[in-house]
Amino acid sequence: MPVPAASHPYWLRDNCPCPECRAPRGGQKLFRIGDLPDGLAAVEATEDATGLTVRWSDGHRSHYPAGWNAPAGPDERTEHAKRLWEAADFARGLPGADWAAYLADPEERAAVLASVLRSGFALLRGVPVEERQVLRVARSFGYVRETNYGELFDVRVEPDPANLAFTSAAVAPHTDNPYRDPVPTLQLLHCLRNDCPGGDSGLVDGFRAAALLRAEDPAAFDLLARTPVPFRYRDRGVELSVEKPLIGLDPRGAVREVRFNDRSTHTAALAALAPADLDAFYAAHRRFAAIVLRPELRLDFRLAPGDCLLFDNTRLLHARTAFEPGDGHRHLQGCYADLDALSSTLAVLRRTTAVLDELEALFEGEGSREYLGEAVTLAAHMLQAAALARAAGAPPALVAAALLHDIGHCRGGAPEAAAGPGGRPGDRHGESAAARLAPHFPPAVTEPVRLHVAAKRYLCTAEPGYADLLSPASVRTLAAQGGPMTPDEAAAFAAHPSGADAVAVRRWDEAAKDPAAPTPSFAEFRPLLRELMSS
Amino acid sequence: MPVPAASHPYWLRDNCPCPECRAPRGGQKLFRIGDLPDGLAAVEATEDATGLTVRWSDGHRSHYPAGWNAPAGPDERTEHAKRLWEAADFARGLPGADWAAYLADPEERAAVLASVLRSGFALLRGVPVEERQVLRVARSFGYVRETNYGELFDVRVEPDPANLAFTSAAVAPHTDNPYRDPVPTLQLLHCLRNDCPGGDSGLVDGFRAAALLRAEDPAAFDLLARTPVPFRYRDRGVELSVEKPLIGLDPRGAVREVRFNDRSTHTAALAALAPADLDAFYAAHRRFAAIVLRPELRLDFRLAPGDCLLFDNTRLLHARTAFEPGDGHRHLQGCYADLDALSSTLAVLRRTTAVLDELEALFEGEGSREYLGEAVTLAAHMLQAAALARAAGAPPALVAAALLHDIGHCRGGAPEAAAGPGGRPGDRHGESAAARLAPHFPPAVTEPVRLHVAAKRYLCTAEPGYADLLSPASVRTLAAQGGPMTPDEAAAFAAHPSGADAVAVRRWDEAAKDPAAPTPSFAEFRPLLRELMSS
Repeated sequence: MPVPAASHPYWLRDNCPCPECRAPRGGQKLFRIGDLPDGLAAVEATEDATGLTVRWSDGHRSHYPAGWNAPAGPDERTEHAKRLWEAADFARGLPGADWAAYLADPEERAAVLASVLRSGFALLRGVPVEERQVLRVARSFGYVRETNYGELFDVRVEPDPANLAFTSAAVAPHTDNPYRDPVPTLQLLHCLRNDCPGGDSGLVDGFRAAALLRAEDPAAFDLLARTPVPFRYRDRGVELSVEKPLIGLDPRGAVREVRFNDRSTHTAALAALAPADLDAFYAAHRRFAAIVLRPELRLDFRLAPGDCLLFDNTRLLHARTAFEPGDGHRHLQGCYADLDALSSTLAVLRRTTAVLDELEALFEGEGSREYLGEAVTLAAHMLQAAALARAAGAPPALVAAALLHDIGHCRGGAPEAAAGPGGRPGDRHGESAAARLAPHFPPAVTEPVRLHVAAKRYLCTAEPGYADLLSPASVRTLAAQGGPMTPDEAAAFAAHPSGADAVAVRRWDEAAKDPAAPTPSFAEFRPLLRELMSS
Repeated sequence: MPVPAASHPYWLRDNCPCPECRAPRGGQKLFRIGDLPDGLAAVEATEDATGLTVRWSDGHRSHYPAGWNAPAGPDERTEHAKRLWEAADFARGLPGADWAAYLADPEERAAVLASVLRSGFALLRGVPVEERQVLRVARSFGYVRETNYGELFDVRVEPDPANLAFTSAAVAPHTDNPYRDPVPTLQLLHCLRNDCPGGDSGLVDGFRAAALLRAEDPAAFDLLARTPVPFRYRDRGVELSVEKPLIGLDPRGAVREVRFNDRSTHTAALAALAPADLDAFYAAHRRFAAIVLRPELRLDFRLAPGDCLLFDNTRLLHARTAFEPGDGHRHLQGCYADLDALSSTLAVLRRTTAVLDELEALFEGEGSREYLGEAVTLAAHMLQAAALARAAGAPPALVAAALLHDIGHCRGGAPEAAAGPGGRPGDRHGESAAARLAPHFPPAVTEPVRLHVAAKRYLCTAEPGYADLLSPASVRTLAAQGGPMTPDEAAAFAAHPSGADAVAVRRWDEAAKDPAAPTPSFAEFRPLLRELMSS
C-alpha cells in the first residue's frame, strides 16, 4: 500500500491507533473530528517492517502497525456480500444443523449463523416441540423484537383472523411487517404441528429477484428503487404506516433491502407521482411480482415438528401453500429478531475461535521450547498447572488462569529475551500476559495471571519456608522481580480481591514442573476457555 | 379530483375498497398485483355525489366513496414532516408533560408523542424516582428494544468503563448505537439522581444541522449523503459493524436519518474512496461537525430526578457536560425503543378521539331528535340505558353496549328512514350499529349491540308477560323485526355466548324511556369508551 500520509492527512490521523486517540478497551475514538486543527499535515512519515510512523504538524505522533488497513469486505447487508440463489441450488438439502449440535458445537453454530447472512436462511432441526422454544432459539444469538403480534405469535387457524396468516389460505411470497420502520430484520418460525394436507413452506431470494429485474428491465428496477411506496396495517389497537421503496439500495446503488407484501401495499398516495411514472410504476411492480413467482426461484419444503426456520426478512420472501385443517393441525410459533445481533454473535464466535487457535499455536510453537532451564517445556508447565487446578476442583476461571499464566513468556514470534540471571526482561510477564488476555477474558482470569509473579514475592514474605520450595530458575528470577515483598506490600497484596486466587495459581505454578507428570492437551481446555470468553 | 380511471387503471384497481379486494377488518389487500389481467381497462366510469363507480374490462366493479383518496401528508420520518429547531425555539420551555397527566389524559399523551415525532423529543416530569421506571415509560407507547447494553442500562460512573458514557467525562453530541442496523430509533433517559456539579444535558437537531449544511455547502451535503461510513463497536462479547452514510436520504432526497458518533466512526475502509473524494469527505465531515457544535443549535437543560427524556435517535444528537462525581451522584437509567410503535400509539389515540367525537356528535345531532315516537329523544334513551347499566354494576363493555345500542338508528347525515309501522328499515339497526362499532370496540361491546333486537324477539317468546311491557313504538316494530322467536330460535339464542348480555342490554333498553329520569352526558362515558377501545 502506498504511504497516503501526505495526500490524505485527516483520514490517516482519524485512524491513529495510539491509546490517546483510541480507547485500548473497545477501540472507541477519543477525539472529535473537529478537534483536529485546520491545515493538518504530516511533517515526517517513515515506513519500515513494523509499519508507518508519522509526525504531525500539531506535534502528535502516530504509529500504524503493518497491515493496519487490510481491505474490508463489502457491507455484509448488501447483495455483494450474499450468495444469491435459486431453488435448484439447494437440491442437496437445506443449510442448517441439529439443535443439539448447534448448542454444543461452536463451529456448527457459526455455520448456521453464517448461512443466514450468506444465503438468507437456515433450518434448525430437533428443537424441542414445546411452546416458546422459538424465543430460546432467538436468544441463542440475539434479542427478540416485540411487535403488535406479541413477543411471539402463533401461526394457526384462528376464529376471527385479523391477518391472512391466521387462516388456512395460501399465502403468496412476501416479507413481513413492511409497515414497520425499523422492519424486523429476522424472522423465526418454529413448527409444533404440521399434519394437515398442504401447508408447505416456500422461500424466494428477493435479492435474486431484484437482480433479475435489473438485468431484464433496468428502468423498471430504477423506478421501483426510487419510488417510496406506502405500506399500511391497522386493526383496533394498531395503525402502522411506512413509506419505503420495494427495492432499497445503499448510496452506491447496491440492493440492501426488499419489501414485498401485496396485502399491505396501500398505493392510493401514489397518485402524487407524475402520471407517466404512475403507469410505469405499475408495469414495473407487476414485472417484479411476476419474477418473484417464477417457479425456479421458489424453494419449497415442508416443516416438520421441531424444525425452526430462521430467515432474513429484509431479503427473503416467505410463503405457504393452502392447507385443509380437517382432522389435522398446523401450528407454528414465530418471533422476530434482528440481523445485527446475529452478525455480532457470529463475529464473536469467529474471533473466539481465532484467539483459541492463536493460543494453541503458542503452546505448540514457542511453548514447546525449553522453559527457563526447567525440566519441562513452557507448554507442559502451563498444561500441568491447569491439570492441577482442575484436579483441585478450582472454578473454570482459575483453571484458565493456571493454563495461561505464563503466556507472557511468549511473544508470538521470537520468545521474549527470556529471563537471564539478574536480567529485567522476565519481570513483567504477568502484566504482559494479562494485557494480552484482557480483550478476551474476564478479570477473574486475567487478574490472577497478572498477579502470579507478585504472589511469589508475597509468599516469600508471608510464608516461612516457601522460598525454599522454589526451583533454581525461580530463585534466579526472584531478584529481577523485586525480591520478597516488604511487610506493607504483603499486607496490601493479601487485601487485594484477587490476591488469594493469584496465590492459588502460584502454588499450581510451583508444582507444575515435573517431567514425569501426565500432561493434558490444550484441546481439552478449549471448551472451558470458550465458555469464559463469552461470559 | 379528476377521474383517473381511464389513464391509470392499475393504480385505481389496486385501490378498490370492495370486500372482495380488501379485508373489511384490517384492510389487508386480498389479491396480488400480478392477479390483475394484462391490458386492464375501465369499461365505464361514472362519478356522482357518492363517489366514483367503475366497471372493469374483467367484469369487476369498484366503487370509490367520495374523498377516498384524500392527499396524504409527507412521510412522517423525513425532514418534511418535522419542525426543525434551534435552541432559542424552546425559550419558553421544553415540550412535555407531567407523568400523572400523561397517564390520565389522552390529550396530554397524544401531545407528548406528537412532540417526539415533530420536534424529536419530549420531557416527562414526575416519573417515579425508582429503578426500571424507564421501561414502564417505554411500554406506555411501545416496545423496549434490547441491545448488548441490556434491556435497560445505567448511565453513571463505572469502575472499568467500556464506553465513555459510563465515565464523568463530557460527551459530545452524538447519536447512539450507530453500529446497529436497525439502529434503535428512540432513546429514553430517566434521571434518578443528578446532584453533582455539571452533568447537564444537551440536544441538537441533526436534521436542522443537515439542512444548514445543505444550504451552506450543497456539495458537502451530497458527499456525506452518498458515502457509507463504517461504524464499529467491539468489546468482549460484541462485535458490531454497520456501513451507513452520516446523512441518510429517502429516495427523493429528503433527510430521513442522521448518524453521528465520533467515537465509533471507523474510517480505515474509506481508503477505498477515490482520492479526491477522501479529502472532500473529511472536509465535509469536519464542516458538518462544526455545524453540529454551533452554540445556537444546542439546547441545554438539566435533568432533575423524575425527569424522563424521550428522543428520536435517528434525528437528535444528545450530549452532556462533564461532571465532578465527588460527593454527589449522577445516575440515569436508559433504554431504547422504536418510533413506529410510538407513531402507531399516537395514531390510535387520535383515531379514538375522532371516533368518540363522531359518536358524541351523533348524540348531540341526530340523537337529539324524536325517537320513534317515544317520550325521550334517541340520545336520552341511550344515555339512560347506559346510566341504568352503570347503576346495576354492569361491566364496562355492557355499559358501552347499553350506551351505543341504538346508534344503528343514526346515519351520520339523515336519520335512517325510521321504522314506520310494518316497514323493514328498522329491522337491522342492531347489525348496522355493530358493524359500525366493530373496527373500534371489542366483541364484548358489539355482540350485545348486534343482538339487542333479537333479544326482544327472544324475550317475547321466553318470558311470559314480557311483550306486555313493551312501549307502543316497540310493539309496532316487533313485527318488522320478525315477531317473537320460534322455540328453536329461542333455544339457539339462549345458547349464544352473548345471549345473556344482549338480554341485559334489552332490559335497560326497555327501561330507558322515562322523560323524568336523570340523563347523564355523553362526556361522562368517554373515559370508559376509550378504555374499551384500546383493550
